[in-house]
Order: sequence, then C-alpha cells, then structure tokens
Amino acid sequence: MSIAIPLGYRMSGVHCGIKRNATREDCGLVVSDPPAVAAGVYTSNLVFAAPVAFDRARTPGEGFRAVAVNSGNANACTGERGLADAARMADLAVAAAGEGTGQALVLSTGIIGEFLPLEKIGAGLKRCAEQLGNNQESLVLTARSMMTTDTVHKLSGRTLEVGGRSVRIAGMAKGAAMIAPRMGTMLGLVLTDAALSPAAAQRALSSVVDDTFNCISVDGHMSTNDTVLLLANGAAGGSPLEGSEFERFCAALHEVCGELARAIPNDGEGATHVITLDVAGCASRDAARQIAQSVADSPLVKTAVAGGDPNWGRIISAAGYAGVPFDPRKIQLKVNGFLLYDSGAPAAFVAAEVSASIRDQRDTRIELTFGEGNGKIRFITTDLTAEYVRLNADYHT
Amino acid sequence: MSIAIPLGYRMSGVHCGIKRNATREDCGLVVSDPPAVAAGVYTSNLVFAAPVAFDRARTPGEGFRAVAVNSGNANACTGERGLADAARMADLAVAAAGEGTGQALVLSTGIIGEFLPLEKIGAGLKRCAEQLGNNQESLVLTARSMMTTDTVHKLSGRTLEVGGRSVRIAGMAKGAAMIAPRMGTMLGLVLTDAALSPAAAQRALSSVVDDTFNCISVDGHMSTNDTVLLLANGAAGGSPLEGSEFERFCAALHEVCGELARAIPNDGEGATHVITLDVAGCASRDAARQIAQSVADSPLVKTAVAGGDPNWGRIISAAGYAGVPFDPRKIQLKVNGFLLYDSGAPAAFVAAEVSASIRDQRDTRIELTFGEGNGKIRFITTDLTAEYVRLNADYHT
Repeated sequence: MSIAIPLGYRMSGVHCGIKRNATREDCGLVVSDPPAVAAGVYTSNLVFAAPVAFDRARTPGEGFRAVAVNSGNANACTGERGLADAARMADLAVAAAGEGTGQALVLSTGIIGEFLPLEKIGAGLKRCAEQLGNNQESLVLTARSMMTTDTVHKLSGRTLEVGGRSVRIAGMAKGAAMIAPRMGTMLGLVLTDAALSPAAAQRALSSVVDDTFNCISVDGHMSTNDTVLLLANGAAGGSPLEGSEFERFCAALHEVCGELARAIPNDGEGATHVITLDVAGCASRDAARQIAQSVADSPLVKTAVAGGDPNWGRIISAAGYAGVPFDPRKIQLKVNGFLLYDSGAPAAFVAAEVSASIRDQRDTRIELTFGEGNGKIRFITTDLTAEYVRLNADYHT
Repeated sequence: MSIAIPLGYRMSGVHCGIKRNATREDCGLVVSDPPAVAAGVYTSNLVFAAPVAFDRARTPGEGFRAVAVNSGNANACTGERGLADAARMADLAVAAAGEGTGQALVLSTGIIGEFLPLEKIGAGLKRCAEQLGNNQESLVLTARSMMTTDTVHKLSGRTLEVGGRSVRIAGMAKGAAMIAPRMGTMLGLVLTDAALSPAAAQRALSSVVDDTFNCISVDGHMSTNDTVLLLANGAAGGSPLEGSEFERFCAALHEVCGELARAIPNDGEGATHVITLDVAGCASRDAARQIAQSVADSPLVKTAVAGGDPNWGRIISAAGYAGVPFDPRKIQLKVNGFLLYDSGAPAAFVAAEVSASIRDQRDTRIELTFGEGNGKIRFITTDLTAEYVRLNADYHT
C-alpha cells in the first residue's frame, strides 16, 4: 500500500535506546515546513499522562513545526517532573527541526511510571532530523516509532480533489491493548496538506474520532496516553476549506481514521477474531453505544467467539446489564447472519453450522437489534484468548 | 467443617440426568416442616430468568414448605414456556414434599436458552423426597446440587444465642464465573430456624447481600439467574426477632454470607489469586464501589496479578476511568503492604520483592486510598489466567 505523503512534511524514525531490541524504532520526528494548524483528541482518563496535558493545552492552535514521538515510555504518572520532561521533549524537537520558529507537540507511549530518558530522546531526534524524508520509507519508520506491542505498523491515506487542487491525508496509529472506547492506549497522527482553520481542524477531528477510534475496544481498559493529532499545513495551496469542500475533506478523514481504528483491534493482543458488533433499534445512539460496550467488554462473550461457540445467552445477558432500559421480548440476535434469538426466545438453528462459521473466518459479525427506536452504532472489538493473558501477565517485569 | 443444621429443615440432592456426568448432583430439595418465611435478592439484569421472575413475585412472603434446586439448565431466555416451567417445578416440589400445604421457591442455574427437562426434574425431586435428611451429608448433597463449574461446594454456618434460645443459620452458595457485582451467576440459599417476620427477613437479607455477594466479581459479567434466598421457619421457638436480637442475627447472617461470597472468587474459574481490594478515602461508598469495580474488572490488572507483576500503572489508570471524580495527586497505592505510588508519583520500591510477594501466595491485597472523604469498600475478585479462557472457550458446545 503506497500512501501519498502530504506536501510540506518530512519525517523519520530511529532506535534511540528506550526499547531493548535495537531493531525497533522508538523515536520519531515529523517536521512541517510551513507552520501547521493542529487539533487533538485525548483520553478522558482522569489519570492522564504528561504529553496529553502538554498537547491538550496547545490544541486547537497554529504555528506548529514538529511532532516528536517516542515509544517504550509513556511519561505517565510522573508528576511535575513528567510535565517538565514533556515540555523539554518539545523543545528538543523544535531545535532538531532547525530553521524557523514554531512550536512542537509530543506523543509518548509505553511503560507507565518511569521518567523519560531525555538524553536518549534528544540524540534520537537529532538523528531523525538528519534523515528526514517525504517518502514511503520515512513514513513507515515514523509509524514504527510509535509501536509498542503492535505486530504491524498502521497507516492509511486518501487523496481528494478540492477546488481544483489535490489534497492529501496520511494517518498513522498504534495500539494493541489497553484499548477501550473514549479512547484506548493508542496514538494517532494524521497529516494533511489541506488548509484548515484551527477551529475547523478540531471540529473535523472530534466528530470523526467519535465514530472511529471511540468505537473500538480490545480489553476495555482506558489508557492514560490516548491522543490523536491532526496537522494541517495548507501546503496544497488554496484558502481554508469550508462548506461542501470541508464536508468532503471530513468524509476522507473519516475513511482514514476508520481504517486506522479498525487496524487496532485487528492487531489486538492475542486476538484470533475481529468482532464487528452492529447494535440497532435503540432509543438513542448513546444507548446503542452503552449496550455495544457491555457486550464487547464481556470476557464470556469474547471467549465464546475465541472458542467458536454460538453461546448467544452470553450476548443477550451482557446487553441486559448495560444499564439501558429495553424490552427483552423485542430482541433479535444474529451471528454471522444466522438468527439465534428472536422476540425473547431461542430461534431454531444448527449449532454446528454457526460454530463452523465462527471458527472458519477471522471476522465475526454480531447483529443485535432492539425494538426501542432508531439509535444504532457499529463497534469493533476482539476475542479474548490465552495468548492475551500470557502477553499481559509477562509484559512488565 | 461441621455446620449445625437449623431445626425443622430436611434436604437432599441427587443426579437426575441434566448433567452428563452421573456422579454430579443436579437436583436438590429443601423441605421446611413448619412453613417458613422467605426473603430474596435477585439479579438486576434486565434479561432475568424464569425462576427469578417466579421467586421475585413471591418474596418476601410466608407459608413456604420447599425450595427446589436444579443445575445444568438455567431456564433463562425461555419466554412464556420458561415461566410455566418454573411454576410447574415449584408444584412438583410441593408434591414431593408431601403432607401439608404451602408454596415452593425454585433455583435454577446452568445453560441459558434451553427448556427445563421437567420429567427428569420431577423424578429427581421424588427421589430427593425419599432420602431427606437433616445431617451433614444431606446438606452437602443439596449444596452440590446447585454446582455448575464450581470445583467445591460452598457452605457456611453460625449458631447464636438469642433470648435464651439457640438459633442456627446454615447457608450454601454456588458460583465460579459470570460473576459480577449486583450480582453474579450465583445462587445462595440460607436457612435459619430463627423466627423472623417477612419484612425483617427481607431487610436482613438485602442489607447483608449489598456488603457481601454484591462486593465480589470474577469476570464482570452479570448473570440472568442470580438469586439469594433466606428461609426462616421459627423452629428454634420464640417470637419474631426484634431490636438488638435482630441486630445480632443480622451480624451472624453477615458472617455467613461473607464466607459464602468469598468462597465464590476463591473458586473462580482458572483463578490462581484471590484479590482483596480495599478502596478508601472516597467521597462516598458508591464512589468507592465504582472505582473498586473498575479496577477489579480490568483484564490488565487481573493478568498483572496472575503474572506476579507489580504493574501499578494499570491499577491507577483503571481507577482513572471509573467515572468518579478525584484528585490524582492524592492517590496512595499499596500492594501486599508495599507502597508503590504516593501523592501522584511513583514510590521507591524493589520490584522483585513485590513480585515475589504476589507470586508466593494465593491472596493479593490491594489498598487504594484517595483524598476525597470517608467512603470505602472491600471488594473481592480474582486474577485472569489462560485457564479461565480455556474453560470459557470450551464450555458450551
């Protein structure tokens, strides 16, 4: 997959020594030659990391020249020193970016509760600055610099024509566990050469994230570091997008964020199935979201899918404790198209057939329909396997 | 452990053919010779099983002669026919109990969505009636008749003196998974020969359950069948307990329910650790409960304990998304007595020491203290192991 790099950006990633394995990038730098507008969306966890505090205070805004990335250390739960370290990391990025004044934003992910190794990061950012590029390789190196337990880097891009000009959007993300809606341990960085006002950039990002990164989960554990940044440097030319051109930009941004969001549960730790959960017929979208989350977070639903088990009672009962009122006699449930439960009673189905359809493919589709209204949501999650347990019982020490 | 059987009760359990393994009891009968007062506490799942609907409509109340128990089939999500089946099961219990009129209550647990095999249960209840006893063996057989994936039966008892008379309380419970606060897939049956009015019985049971069975979890999945029943037949003599005598009865009931509740996570599916979570310093008890539940349900916290990993960042971050406001700079966290986090920053500790203390014992103690007020709660849960996943990926089909 080749992605058009938005104009005016150069980037790279290197190994600076935070991760033990020297073949793994852990430091990245993105430079925007024209100062860019930036918007951000952040974790709603009360215990948020220093880089989240730093970026949140500065977005939406303009005049950004750089984004510094590190993985292997989240700079979370690090108190006042952590805040100072995040600011210092931004300064190091501006210095590395070279000529021109401007601000930088920071993205950190990895272990919680250790202080950032700023010397390593400073040296890493300098080396990134020496090899900045605007090609596929530099894009991949940057995406790799934000990976933790991810097994693949996650990229997505779109090019669209607005006002007779080409505009490019390129996005990268990381995340494989500690993933819960609103939001997960994920980082996302979306670059565009479109011209956007800070307010429009924020509006575009906020509305798109709610539908994409906020509709995925792996394990229901919301992280301290979640951040999605959108940079718009206007290098494609033209005046800031408005009206129908802005709407078309938002639609393309939605596609990019949707692909990146789906890539996260698809790389979920130990996952053998990606579950697409369509909840419909609810009193509101919020009601649908709450039910989807309850079903998606149930270890019993997740293990049933892992075992190829059409155990619909676990799905129905997880909906029942979501805290949303509904009439249980109006529920309909399908798994991979097979009707399992209808109007409050079990449907006639061949368990072996449904079981085989779950076992034989990586994607599982659950459709849960209520009789309360038109509220609906699509939510994407993973199954739960012994491998997830093994990975997380062994990660830290 | 020998438990004094309350006067006026006879009971038994048999294998009637619901479970495949013929050495496992799946049908039980408790008969109270004097008609008993009964109180009940039930699942708050919107999708509740037929036996829950049946019992809830009749408690608190009086004139109960029998409780019929079956395991292997939950009679849940079975529609109108399920409701008729629950009523029929109660009738079969009254018939089996023999002479004297009265009502019966029913307890069912096991697979969701299949109809009760009433012929087997009718024959089983008859065989139970032929071998009713008021000894340890009959108590154990009855407790075993409610087991599903439990590896041990769960009993607790107390004898106390009130008004110059001995009063006995004997309780049994089941549960190993689909266990979440308010409440889990659990059944509890507590028998006493104390005299209680229906209202007092209900008041005693409701207040005690909130502190015991509602403070445990295994996997955060709330079941359709949770029920705790208290029967009080007054066979110990005397008039209904009031005032300080009632308070002393409640204290003993609390001990019995506390032991039974703790026995459930102790038998949690695949669990290698029982985690006692003391959350204190919150604005209210409800706030403490919400935080405790968020920490207890996090797969990342549970796998960290399984792996003997003092990964305090997972505990702090799980508190942060509980939806309860607090000042992160006032958190203190201890694990097994070791101070790991204090006033918003990591404490100095030797990871290997803490790790060894988790690994070397089955009990793990987490103390999480906030600076918001005096609200506190003790919550008991389990770790999450690959064995839990294996058990639940394979259970149904």
